[in-house]
Amino acid sequence: MKLGDLGEFGLIDSIRARVGAAPGVYRGIGDDAAELEIPAGHRLLTSTDLLLEEVHFRFAWTSAYDLGRKAVAVNLSDVAAMGGLPRFVYVGLACPADAEVAQLDAFVTGVLDEAAEHGVILVGGDTCRSPGPWVISVTVEGTAPAGTAVGRDGAHPGDLVLVSGTLGDSALALDLWQQGKTPDPWLATRHNRPLPRIALGRELALAGLATAMIDLSDGVASDLEHILQASKAGAEILSSALPLSPAFRTQLERRPELFDLALGGGEDYELLCTVPAARAEEALSAGTRTGVPLTIIGTVMERGAGFRLRDAAGGVRPLRVRGYDHFCR
Amino acid sequence: MKLGDLGEFGLIDSIRARVGAAPGVYRGIGDDAAELEIPAGHRLLTSTDLLLEEVHFRFAWTSAYDLGRKAVAVNLSDVAAMGGLPRFVYVGLACPADAEVAQLDAFVTGVLDEAAEHGVILVGGDTCRSPGPWVISVTVEGTAPAGTAVGRDGAHPGDLVLVSGTLGDSALALDLWQQGKTPDPWLATRHNRPLPRIALGRELALAGLATAMIDLSDGVASDLEHILQASKAGAEILSSALPLSPAFRTQLERRPELFDLALGGGEDYELLCTVPAARAEEALSAGTRTGVPLTIIGTVMERGAGFRLRDAAGGVRPLRVRGYDHFCR
Repeated sequence: MKLGDLGEFGLIDSIRARVGAAPGVYRGIGDDAAELEIPAGHRLLTSTDLLLEEVHFRFAWTSAYDLGRKAVAVNLSDVAAMGGLPRFVYVGLACPADAEVAQLDAFVTGVLDEAAEHGVILVGGDTCRSPGPWVISVTVEGTAPAGTAVGRDGAHPGDLVLVSGTLGDSALALDLWQQGKTPDPWLATRHNRPLPRIALGRELALAGLATAMIDLSDGVASDLEHILQASKAGAEILSSALPLSPAFRTQLERRPELFDLALGGGEDYELLCTVPAARAEEALSAGTRTGVPLTIIGTVMERGAGFRLRDAAGGVRPLRVRGYDHFCR
Repeated sequence: MKLGDLGEFGLIDSIRARVGAAPGVYRGIGDDAAELEIPAGHRLLTSTDLLLEEVHFRFAWTSAYDLGRKAVAVNLSDVAAMGGLPRFVYVGLACPADAEVAQLDAFVTGVLDEAAEHGVILVGGDTCRSPGPWVISVTVEGTAPAGTAVGRDGAHPGDLVLVSGTLGDSALALDLWQQGKTPDPWLATRHNRPLPRIALGRELALAGLATAMIDLSDGVASDLEHILQASKAGAEILSSALPLSPAFRTQLERRPELFDLALGGGEDYELLCTVPAARAEEALSAGTRTGVPLTIIGTVMERGAGFRLRDAAGGVRPLRVRGYDHFCR
């Protein structure tokens, strides 16, 4: 069956039937706006993303189910990077009228599974026809107790720079696809099923450990620069300290140029944070406790020191990458 | 200058510089998520829309400035239809890298002007390259005191059906453009610059006058059916009662078939509500007080009565339009 046979209202009705009642949701799908409760003493944290076929994803590499999960996950990751608890999600979808209903169903199932896994409720969205590519917009609303959310502007000279998980896996999978190769399943999963680090982000925020935090969408080089600009600081990163997966190391041995992906590859969706040196031990424990290892990769410095990379031989080079710019080629 | 020369970060920086600090906004543009305060005792009302070039708008008919205003206005209208006060807006924009920066600036100015006119703050969004059409996603967050928001499900038999402003003007403008004609400026403005009925919606909600409310995006026939379905009710509409503008009447005299646009034309963004008969006078006064006249156009009935239109000669025909369906042609 094609989407054109089911229709917009048929699609909305079928999605609505799959979402149950939930605490804090007075009105969800099916009214002009969702009506929601924010716990007293908490602030609202909202993030929104726009994803386009051929720009952000290709069905040759990412299934409709994984796309649904990933579209939600990357927004949950933004709330995680503030130290917040994601609660509500909205999905806008434009796709061709000749899209298969089975593909739509897989996408919706991915959205609902990812939301459910993190206790998040689908409460609204929008659907329309696209003349060409699939277009997905996702908005996530979360909360954090007043005064606990962590921005990008609090890094101080002397703080240590920590990152969760491993770097470059997602970009390596993409690199292999772009070369016509097939990444091994673990690498492909790192690209298609990012894991929002919600529990870790909350621990770092609620305990006041992180002075600044961001999630890695464009790579350490670019995303740490966002923190340094907002915090008016510099930093030194140790190339030998970057956490790399066994799968990444195997490829790196054959192709040393892949190291750039660990620094500047996109879509890791790991947390990058700065922590006062005296509290680094506590932060590392939080990583252990939440099952998401943190690694110290460098130090925040005075702004005058710039942003630089120190290699294993002691050589230093400036990092001036501004990451992926959608409009500059 | 082309957008590709300015770049994504240049664009974001330039927008950020135009948005000042505001009460309730702890973090706005430039962090992973916005951090916002919701007043105690209020609930959050959130609406989101996806707009695609060629599907929802054409630059031949709508300027970039008007597009910015309209993209925000139609979401403000959703919050107005709940009786809420819109507070925060997020805009996602995908456009070709060869878009003119002047066109982008006009769009952003439209967004900021529409937001400012209604006391709403731009607190986030997303930008990326589009391989083809412009794509715009807008999310609006508003608030209403707990227990005052008006949904679609509260209409009771005996309630009167009221609508604000005039019907069909926007659809008539579109009809004329599609025929290669130029609508007069007033009609064109009705299409390109919808007025979110925020003050009226709040009055109707806070005074407990409206039992159900919706904003007209697909026309009375379709949007009242949404209320009737949610409320498990029927209704009778009087064709001679539909409020029509002088510009619409002039065209209608020449082309009687245009009457369908008053009933089923899209994008009026007027408020359609149901009000207990005993309180209709109060509702009409609220319209006068807020400068947005309300007109009684029919009555809510038992479900068994169906949804029907009574014409001036007393003839009755069923209304079974389900409005514009994006996927069905």
